Amino acid sequence: MAKTSLFKRAEAGQTLSDGAFRAVRDQLRFELVDLQQRCRLNGAYPVIIVLSGVQGAGVVDSTNLLNTWMDPRWIRTHAFDTPSDEERERPLFWRAWRSLPAAGTIGLYLDGWYGEAVTAHARGRTSPAVFADHLARIKIFERALTDDGALIVKIWLHLSQKGHRQCADAHHDDPVFGFRASDDSWPQPASYPKFTAIAAKGIKATDTTEAPWSIVDGTDDNHRRAQVLTILRDAMAAHEKAWLAKSKAAKKSIKRAIKADNKNPLPKKKKIGALAKVDFSKTLGDDAYAKAFHTRQARIYDLQKKARAAGLSTIIAFEGWDAAGKGGAIRRLTYALSARNYKVVPISAPSDEERAHHYLWRFWRHLSRDGHITLFDRSWYGRVLVERVEHLTAENAWTRAYDEINAFEAELAAHGTLLLKFWLHIDNDEQLRRFKEREKTAYKRWKITDDDWRNREKWNRSWVAVDEMLARTSTPTAPWHVIPANDKSFARIKIFDIAIKALETALKGRKA
Amino acid sequence: MAKTSLFKRAEAGQTLSDGAFRAVRDQLRFELVDLQQRCRLNGAYPVIIVLSGVQGAGVVDSTNLLNTWMDPRWIRTHAFDTPSDEERERPLFWRAWRSLPAAGTIGLYLDGWYGEAVTAHARGRTSPAVFADHLARIKIFERALTDDGALIVKIWLHLSQKGHRQCADAHHDDPVFGFRASDDSWPQPASYPKFTAIAAKGIKATDTTEAPWSIVDGTDDNHRRAQVLTILRDAMAAHEKAWLAKSKAAKKSIKRAIKADNKNPLPKKKKIGALAKVDFSKTLGDDAYAKAFHTRQARIYDLQKKARAAGLSTIIAFEGWDAAGKGGAIRRLTYALSARNYKVVPISAPSDEERAHHYLWRFWRHLSRDGHITLFDRSWYGRVLVERVEHLTAENAWTRAYDEINAFEAELAAHGTLLLKFWLHIDNDEQLRRFKEREKTAYKRWKITDDDWRNREKWNRSWVAVDEMLARTSTPTAPWHVIPANDKSFARIKIFDIAIKALETALKGRKA
Repeated sequence: MAKTSLFKRAEAGQTLSDGAFRAVRDQLRFELVDLQQRCRLNGAYPVIIVLSGVQGAGVVDSTNLLNTWMDPRWIRTHAFDTPSDEERERPLFWRAWRSLPAAGTIGLYLDGWYGEAVTAHARGRTSPAVFADHLARIKIFERALTDDGALIVKIWLHLSQKGHRQCADAHHDDPVFGFRASDDSWPQPASYPKFTAIAAKGIKATDTTEAPWSIVDGTDDNHRRAQVLTILRDAMAAHEKAWLAKSKAAKKSIKRAIKADNKNPLPKKKKIGALAKVDFSKTLGDDAYAKAFHTRQARIYDLQKKARAAGLSTIIAFEGWDAAGKGGAIRRLTYALSARNYKVVPISAPSDEERAHHYLWRFWRHLSRDGHITLFDRSWYGRVLVERVEHLTAENAWTRAYDEINAFEAELAAHGTLLLKFWLHIDNDEQLRRFKEREKTAYKRWKITDDDWRNREKWNRSWVAVDEMLARTSTPTAPWHVIPANDKSFARIKIFDIAIKALETALKGRKA
Repeated sequence: MAKTSLFKRAEAGQTLSDGAFRAVRDQLRFELVDLQQRCRLNGAYPVIIVLSGVQGAGVVDSTNLLNTWMDPRWIRTHAFDTPSDEERERPLFWRAWRSLPAAGTIGLYLDGWYGEAVTAHARGRTSPAVFADHLARIKIFERALTDDGALIVKIWLHLSQKGHRQCADAHHDDPVFGFRASDDSWPQPASYPKFTAIAAKGIKATDTTEAPWSIVDGTDDNHRRAQVLTILRDAMAAHEKAWLAKSKAAKKSIKRAIKADNKNPLPKKKKIGALAKVDFSKTLGDDAYAKAFHTRQARIYDLQKKARAAGLSTIIAFEGWDAAGKGGAIRRLTYALSARNYKVVPISAPSDEERAHHYLWRFWRHLSRDGHITLFDRSWYGRVLVERVEHLTAENAWTRAYDEINAFEAELAAHGTLLLKFWLHIDNDEQLRRFKEREKTAYKRWKITDDDWRNREKWNRSWVAVDEMLARTSTPTAPWHVIPANDKSFARIKIFDIAIKALETALKGRKA
């Protein structure tokens, strides 16, 4: 295999004298601890450090060094193991998402999400195409995090082939700091050239401006430590500065948007979008509904049993106008399901743990195991609906969200999850009628608040946001279903029919 | 099998006319929704509803009814399935703890933690003694929750044997609301007398003042629904009242305790406790330490590998005075461990999700799978240390905590987890010396805050709390190890030696 030039500089066996290291050490340590405290106080972004490299090049030593120096309350080390069944039964990046550090804290990842990708390919379990796809998905994953403000520092610790061999000879018998091949969930293949060539491919494919790789010569302890610490110090310092600037710009952008709203409180609804085309003419009488309801319940009950057996995961996201009947539709749908088989996740204001993460984190968190059905009462689309309309999020963040959401849903699809998305559509008059009815009924009064009336005033602005969402996030694997919901009975049966058909198709696909 | 009298009243086949149910229905619904909102606004206690019963008696219908009526944002249904590997590799109640509703919300449990216990016994997989033990542990589990303010409502829906048979005949062919035997993770044995006799045993053993069972005749829909809703309404109303009173009393108790402190700011340290007996005379020179350290690292590395292979879980809890060297000891210990095999959990102020649960919840949350080592830097003992000394918790709550902690640790032991508890002890002068040293060193300055100096003033009060903790929570399976830590080297080697011996013993026990 041709010698890859990527590692050339890191194979020179660079050294640093004890004296030279001592001269910078305490200052580095002070600055790092200080940066960590400031990051904590800013509390606005997480720091993700990926440490990987050739065996013997100092990954474990670097981990220990950082853990020794930093305030342990705000740093946590992660090393992914062979996936458990709970992990295998969820999309690939589920465990990575779950483990992400909260804003203001540091996550230190041994091999990060690279160990699994590189090992599978090195062992011949994945084709070059699958490996390339895996790397591309890692890039998208990291991009979502850095776009959201995360700092990602990726360091590859290197040794030349000769250095690697010497190191192996020297340390192999050391019971503590020997090679510890047995520890590794992602053991490196015996062949140094093959392994480093694959690693180089991985590094090149994921070396981005937002999340760059640094390659460090691991031969000499002093040199390596000084390098790792300096890279981290510089990255944290630069990131803090950039974050403060971005954060200021975001606040300005929100102020501007609010001002623009005030000048133009009621934008015209576009007549060309999907919402304008909704046909409210179809209705369903009580008897027809009762009959249709019963047969569909039986069918969906049967299908969920088969989906459970086949290990098919289903996610159903409900969005719609206030009082459009999301809750009622969910209850009708779940009525016939086995309670052991589904979960309803209502989305309202995030908790502080959720707020301290990427906005998609709390949806990843709720993904169920294979065979289960998860129903979201409101969903990740809040980012481009309420957060946009209420100016909770700066424009560049919610415009970016369309791609992020499509990527998220592509990960669900890659796992084989069936995703259904419903927009329950009612018209303005029907909403008013329902609001008034709720106010009249004692046990429904909790359903209606001042917020709901306030939201009504933003109807047209929301309309524009919904139309754009439908246009930009309807994909072949996860199209939006716009349901005319002025007639509740018609809407509920429609939802049943779409869900039944989708389950049938997905189950057929499984058997083939 | 003798007819059990427990169910007699619920086998009469009681009914309620449509008119009579309609007359109370809307008022019940209004009150329940109103109680739910008030519970939410009080935000101070969770509501746990366990629904169980004879098949066909209306468990599913009751679940649907409550889910239909209540605000779905604050109620979640749980039904435990056959344990996953992640669940099996953790203590029995882990998944129950994880699922607990936050304060202000409702958890609705199908069969709760009873399904597993009753089924295992009904199928002959557990002896009467094991079944009785399981029930006793459920009682302790529920007691911990109710003591903490939770409302637990347990309802058993019943049918007479004749009613059960009739119901089976009538519904068996209904594809939606038939018996759905295949849904059940905890399928009921065919024999009605046997199953109800075992259920009766379970109910009797866990019918406590704090978490009583209600038995409801499930024959008639109207009667059953009215009963279930009334039981819940009455329980929620009574609980709210009791909680408001308790909460007032707790605030008063804290005020009283602070007043008493101010009158008597420096209690005498007891000369009779464990701390007074600590011998600080032993020290370890640098060379001896270096040598001892190296051999022990090798040994612990070897033992963690064996523990991993044997599936032995280890938890090491570190407590001690500020600056006693907890962090340093943890780092020395983990230095030689495989990063894939351990996790350090530093305990500081809880997040809002953690605050909304029982104080032990966040420790349950961090329990690792079998074979892993979890090191807690501070632990659940904060309840009887800082929370006591700082009057963050009322006296009756922290005095109760000794038993709760012992019960928690007994659950760890029952799972086979090895638990080590270290109190790192330094004297007052040594602490002062270390504080001053930290202030002098730039990169250690973050370790010392005004809080630390303030804590020092409460030294004697903490001493009393530590002594009482050591006396009341040293158990045969989880004794406290008080480590003289004025000499850091001596302390670290001592900790190594205790951990090594404990691992060796535990591993020997596994093989036997």
